[in-house]
Amino acid sequence: MKLRLAGAADLAVIMHHRRSMFREMGYHNEADLDAMAATSAPFIQAGLADGSYRGWLIEAAAGVVAGGGMVIAGFPSHPIDPQPRRVWILNMYTEPEHRGQGLARTIMETMIGWCREQKLAVVALHASEAGRPLYERLGFVPTNEMRLKLK
Amino acid sequence: MKLRLAGAADLAVIMHHRRSMFREMGYHNEADLDAMAATSAPFIQAGLADGSYRGWLIEAAAGVVAGGGMVIAGFPSHPIDPQPRRVWILNMYTEPEHRGQGLARTIMETMIGWCREQKLAVVALHASEAGRPLYERLGFVPTNEMRLKLK
Repeated sequence: MKLRLAGAADLAVIMHHRRSMFREMGYHNEADLDAMAATSAPFIQAGLADGSYRGWLIEAAAGVVAGGGMVIAGFPSHPIDPQPRRVWILNMYTEPEHRGQGLARTIMETMIGWCREQKLAVVALHASEAGRPLYERLGFVPTNEMRLKLK
Repeated sequence: MKLRLAGAADLAVIMHHRRSMFREMGYHNEADLDAMAATSAPFIQAGLADGSYRGWLIEAAAGVVAGGGMVIAGFPSHPIDPQPRRVWILNMYTEPEHRGQGLARTIMETMIGWCREQKLAVVALHASEAGRPLYERLGFVPTNEMRLKLK
């Protein structure tokens, strides 16, 4: 098993992870997933090129078996962090036959380590029910985010 | 009372709102607030110019008495919304002597209306304790966002 940073050539596997993650979260409408893929792929491709998306992958002999990534987005700064940007972890996915081996944890710890190097005060994510236990073990706590559905 | 869109000339009042909002949320360290202002101001100024920040203000005869704004940030799209962007409401502030008159609600409804026009599926915010009752009345519900403090 080898952990490595994702590059431009990894867009397809990142999109496979994103789509598979949503499917496992209960989004089964393929048209909605196609629409998501059509606009997420160019966004992530541009982010891989300019550094506003950073992905990590774990590769076994047969290919990539797990991955995760981060969006680094400009955002007004906060009293707890004068950097005008925020980081969200996303696209966490491990192939079913490779679960329970700590791969997601390894990827999470690597991404958290990068955020510490960047002197970020916090890192955020939106937790699936499947991912929540790991995030809680790593010290993540719920935020005060609220949302209004418009559709 | 007149509601209007904020422009480049309104940066100072927007920053007054952002700083006052944080102070009322309990952030009293003036050095931290200065550091926040130093990096938030150019970010919001650029956003007012390119449309990635939209602010609304309510003006009385003596000047601006309330305001709020939105960051429109690029983000990978989701099965519930194929647009590769997300919107967060922020910088909600009403001068103390003008509270209880529905000004924040007017601004919120205006911003929500803009999001509906944009065909966004959701709009998000991070709720202060003071703001939460209004957001709940407008239909906002907690999200599954989690965060890890790194400092």
